Amino acid sequence: MNFINKLNAAWAANDSLLCVGLDPDMDRLPAQFRGTPDGIYHFCKEIIDATADLACAFKPQIAYFAALGAEGQLERIGAYLRDRHPHIPLILDSKRGDIGATAKQYAREAYDRYGADAVTVSPYMGADSVEPYMEWRDRGVIVLCRTSNQGGSDLQFLEVNGKPLYQHVAQLVADKWNSNGQCALVVGATFPEEIRAVRAIVGEMPLLIPGIGAQGGDIEATVRAGRTDAGAGMMINSSRAILYATPQAGEDFAQAARRVADETRHAINAHR
Amino acid sequence: MNFINKLNAAWAANDSLLCVGLDPDMDRLPAQFRGTPDGIYHFCKEIIDATADLACAFKPQIAYFAALGAEGQLERIGAYLRDRHPHIPLILDSKRGDIGATAKQYAREAYDRYGADAVTVSPYMGADSVEPYMEWRDRGVIVLCRTSNQGGSDLQFLEVNGKPLYQHVAQLVADKWNSNGQCALVVGATFPEEIRAVRAIVGEMPLLIPGIGAQGGDIEATVRAGRTDAGAGMMINSSRAILYATPQAGEDFAQAARRVADETRHAINAHR
Repeated sequence: MNFINKLNAAWAANDSLLCVGLDPDMDRLPAQFRGTPDGIYHFCKEIIDATADLACAFKPQIAYFAALGAEGQLERIGAYLRDRHPHIPLILDSKRGDIGATAKQYAREAYDRYGADAVTVSPYMGADSVEPYMEWRDRGVIVLCRTSNQGGSDLQFLEVNGKPLYQHVAQLVADKWNSNGQCALVVGATFPEEIRAVRAIVGEMPLLIPGIGAQGGDIEATVRAGRTDAGAGMMINSSRAILYATPQAGEDFAQAARRVADETRHAINAHR
Repeated sequence: MNFINKLNAAWAANDSLLCVGLDPDMDRLPAQFRGTPDGIYHFCKEIIDATADLACAFKPQIAYFAALGAEGQLERIGAYLRDRHPHIPLILDSKRGDIGATAKQYAREAYDRYGADAVTVSPYMGADSVEPYMEWRDRGVIVLCRTSNQGGSDLQFLEVNGKPLYQHVAQLVADKWNSNGQCALVVGATFPEEIRAVRAIVGEMPLLIPGIGAQGGDIEATVRAGRTDAGAGMMINSSRAILYATPQAGEDFAQAARRVADETRHAINAHR
């Protein structure tokens, strides 16, 4: 089963467009996971088990592992997910971008080492920086298009032939880079009108949408702008709001994460 | 000493603009380094020792380590270089690009974990994806501007306000992002006229120039286009042509690497 089919199946099985981001910040982990050699793995494992029936994907952000030299724990997380929840796609958020021979090494890292179903990549270096990933025909490539940060506009909003650059990127991916049907796009939730513009360009292509939760994006506006005719087409990511949910009376961190994930899933579904 | 000063000192001490790229491809390593747990480290160590008096910088490409799970060997290479050849800058080629909180994790990875003096980054996500690196005031940030691959033109050559996008990036970095004097730019050797255009925009800012050697860029045209008035301003990178130089009679791989590095250094110096 390829990435797009697997994602479609997960959307349906869990009735969810929620992507749970795994950004394990050592300063914010519950005390029992801090300072232990495999605390990151066990924390992520508990989050995964608590939310696997509520999510359409899990998205580890590799920077949090790389800063700590914890790549081995990311390998274990990938293996655990494939073993216990094999129907939920794993998206490696690494935003790689390099030329052919080097891009192939990054594809090996994402797909073979971590077992990712899809990986985020930067478009700045062009088609031949993305093509090597396509050799893994059952995997996905999620291209940065419009990002949710303030500085995103510095380049992405520059006008090219009467349109902002990010729309040009969406068009390039839709018309050319997606020839094998393996592509998706990153479009931030902080700009719903821009999600709408991208959806109009790319048809049914899945969108990975960061920026709700801690980053403040509006869920209703996001869903109305990004949904396909079938009421899907999105992986709406929340990381910190779920991972570091404040427990209510009688809850532990994993139950709190489950509660916030389910609330977010319902808030999304209310507008599909 | 900050990155720019350290680079200036290395240019002068070794009379060299040559950057030696460390792209350890397991399939091309000499037989004695293959299949051993720390073969990559020992191979790179020998290359470093053979060329440290001929180079202005060493540039490991992290993808080659990440594909093999060999981050620990990259840590050892960084530590070895700082211990034995502390005057030669270490550039981590990782082309990261992400928003603030995540970019800070990548900065930790590059500067604290690997001890890099500078790191390559992508400009696509804008100013706030680059600013976190600037908190390490003695380190450098090398922003992708014009890359040496064919697909580089897909975005970088798009016309923005009458100029190609890569020139807009050069201007942004020169005018805004370089406020602390920590920046350099990546400009590929395959387009000497474009190196000239970037040099005209950025003044004395250092340029990291890949694309000579195996990628076929013309050394004379590159140096004439990119040199500053002082005859420096460039880190001209060669990786595979040096690492995998074919030994001549009586040489081993390290001696062959030294010979090719010295030939390349002289070929560059002939046109400074």
